[in-house]
Amino acid sequence: MRLLHVSDWHLGATLGRVRRRPDHERVLGEIVAVCADFSPDLVLHTGDLFDHPRPATEDLSLGIETLRRLSERAPVVVLAGNHDSAALFGIFDRLLDLGSGGKAKPVRFIPKARPAAKGGIVDFTSSDGERIRLAPVPFIHPNTLMEVFGVPPERWKADYTDQVRYVEENLGAGLSEGYDPSRDVLLFAAHLHVGGATFSGSERPLHITDTFATRTEHLPQVSYAAFGHIHKPQSLPGTVPGEYAGSPIAIDFGERDEVKSVVCVEASPGAAASIERVELSGGRPLVRLEGSLGELERHRHEVGDAILQVICCTDEHVPQLADQVTELFPEADIYDIAERCSAALVEVVTDTGEADAEPPLGDLFREYLATEETPAPAVDRAMRVFDDLLGAAEAETEAAFDEEVLFDLATVGKAAS
Amino acid sequence: MRLLHVSDWHLGATLGRVRRRPDHERVLGEIVAVCADFSPDLVLHTGDLFDHPRPATEDLSLGIETLRRLSERAPVVVLAGNHDSAALFGIFDRLLDLGSGGKAKPVRFIPKARPAAKGGIVDFTSSDGERIRLAPVPFIHPNTLMEVFGVPPERWKADYTDQVRYVEENLGAGLSEGYDPSRDVLLFAAHLHVGGATFSGSERPLHITDTFATRTEHLPQVSYAAFGHIHKPQSLPGTVPGEYAGSPIAIDFGERDEVKSVVCVEASPGAAASIERVELSGGRPLVRLEGSLGELERHRHEVGDAILQVICCTDEHVPQLADQVTELFPEADIYDIAERCSAALVEVVTDTGEADAEPPLGDLFREYLATEETPAPAVDRAMRVFDDLLGAAEAETEAAFDEEVLFDLATVGKAAS
Repeated sequence: MRLLHVSDWHLGATLGRVRRRPDHERVLGEIVAVCADFSPDLVLHTGDLFDHPRPATEDLSLGIETLRRLSERAPVVVLAGNHDSAALFGIFDRLLDLGSGGKAKPVRFIPKARPAAKGGIVDFTSSDGERIRLAPVPFIHPNTLMEVFGVPPERWKADYTDQVRYVEENLGAGLSEGYDPSRDVLLFAAHLHVGGATFSGSERPLHITDTFATRTEHLPQVSYAAFGHIHKPQSLPGTVPGEYAGSPIAIDFGERDEVKSVVCVEASPGAAASIERVELSGGRPLVRLEGSLGELERHRHEVGDAILQVICCTDEHVPQLADQVTELFPEADIYDIAERCSAALVEVVTDTGEADAEPPLGDLFREYLATEETPAPAVDRAMRVFDDLLGAAEAETEAAFDEEVLFDLATVGKAAS
Repeated sequence: MRLLHVSDWHLGATLGRVRRRPDHERVLGEIVAVCADFSPDLVLHTGDLFDHPRPATEDLSLGIETLRRLSERAPVVVLAGNHDSAALFGIFDRLLDLGSGGKAKPVRFIPKARPAAKGGIVDFTSSDGERIRLAPVPFIHPNTLMEVFGVPPERWKADYTDQVRYVEENLGAGLSEGYDPSRDVLLFAAHLHVGGATFSGSERPLHITDTFATRTEHLPQVSYAAFGHIHKPQSLPGTVPGEYAGSPIAIDFGERDEVKSVVCVEASPGAAASIERVELSGGRPLVRLEGSLGELERHRHEVGDAILQVICCTDEHVPQLADQVTELFPEADIYDIAERCSAALVEVVTDTGEADAEPPLGDLFREYLATEETPAPAVDRAMRVFDDLLGAAEAETEAAFDEEVLFDLATVGKAAS
């Protein structure tokens, strides 16, 4: 059987003010063309279809239209990633069910992992008559209690990795039940962080989850394990045959040197799959330039339509510097232009005790404001808002702002008491 | 043929802090039961399925599940209202198409009116073999240019009513083309404001649109015209057989005295329909009480689980008044409790020139703040925010707030220049 494995589209993503829509349109066109060439028996999207749990309708539209085009070749399965809304995926799947009247759907959204005994394993038939058995594990939030899997109470307090392992054991047992080595091709798919996988350049583990979710040793024995979550294309660590397909475009500057791709897999019953990467070039390059105006000018003809981050070094503050830089690169989409002016640099002394420890985020932000020459009263107000936001994020509550609170008090009056 | 006509569910609506979910769950259960009893050939929802263009997933879920249950009896057609997102309805319809593989869908979302020649008229077959021909007109925004209908340029500058009339003429001509009086039942459906229709109690025309969208004289000749938009159940003005089904629950206090219902229609080819209302009682009553604590207490046993707005009259300010009132009505859901304290009333002198003219909204709001005993500095800040919001709403721009502007300046720094 042939499997096309794609992942982490992040439709609706922006880089600062730069919208990635043109990159997505081009790269999705490439993926549809790869699919037509490869003619797979199954297309598997391992999550983060959208960048936001409530995507804009234009992003919904692009995503669903692309899945529809892929489904003209083969059934499509989409796992919910941590950026996707499982509830929204559930609604999509219900609309597809409603349309199909209970028959096989050309596209299938998987909002949540389900136990093998409750439909957690999905079967397909390949063009050669093989039975494809897929165990899908969409993103599992660390706060989720595994009630639906009937995790026994003594394991409720187990850590995240252990709970995910319970899910994998259940589905692994389901895959081996009635397994016919002459006919069955077993597949595993997940949107999870596997211990040992590596992140893109500047990405910090913080961006994904604090701890990895699973280990390759815990995965069921399958011909191919399809992973999503990490944007850098890579094989799974260890000996399990499987891949992180990676994102089709560089989502941020940490990924700017990566060659993006999709995975074309050919698998036979009871054997490890043969795996081939097909490169994608639809996303505009992300380019970071640093230097004086004169130095920048020398890169004029290399930049083209890249998305550009520029640090321009000056001796004295140059008025309208941003306009001058923008004129240098007329086809580029400017993500950011910063001036590093030697006359204005503020030296910030921070004593963090340990030399290696990261300073608190608040200090880093205050330092950043200083380098941006922010006036003192604005720094104080910005810091107050920043601290509130950070506190709210850490406490997982809604941030409240003075203006709103005051407005509520004034308008709601005594009714709020 | 038999038609069940429902409208204006406004799923996700709230009354202040009171969520209407329990009302909706009960009343939608009633509607499903009416549908099972009546056994229609077609179910027609004339718009405002949701209260918000980007509904919460729980509201999406309730809406789609209810439509699915109705579709077990008959095909369901849903028009987009002014509260719905036409784009989202388009995506729903595409998912249903994808699921059905191009076959007839059990539920059909109509995002926009289309010319008769481009599929703007939808045909169904009744259980008696009649051909049901439906011309649906979802909400047309006054700013929409009727390009898709090929309105000739000399009518581009025509007013809204005239443009809507053009749509109605087109669909009317489509209905009469190939019309077979022995077999065809013609239906019209719209989410529009018909001149002469009346609003609920306190609703002001401002809440709907400044001007009505169409006149009954412009409507095509049909057996039944199904309308949505106005929440008060009523027959169409004039001689056209048709109804505003109305909302199934009182959405706000202006509708508190209305008896809500759905419309059961029986129609035969070439004849006006027979129309019957079936009352709904699922929505909790909306009750407004005014009086002293003693007077309020006398209503104690009548209020039950109503949604309650209370004005409590006192001579001197009573501390913890809201708690005392809340205790009086333990089963009620309190929308608002206001104290009218004779010792604290501020007399506001407003000279508006004309005695009959409505004072500007800003003056009304300032007056309201005064009666709420808002402290002066808070009044000034609240008024500034109110004026900004009002100005932005009138100019159809995004409102900007000091806090945000300052924060942007501080954080984005020179990059924004």
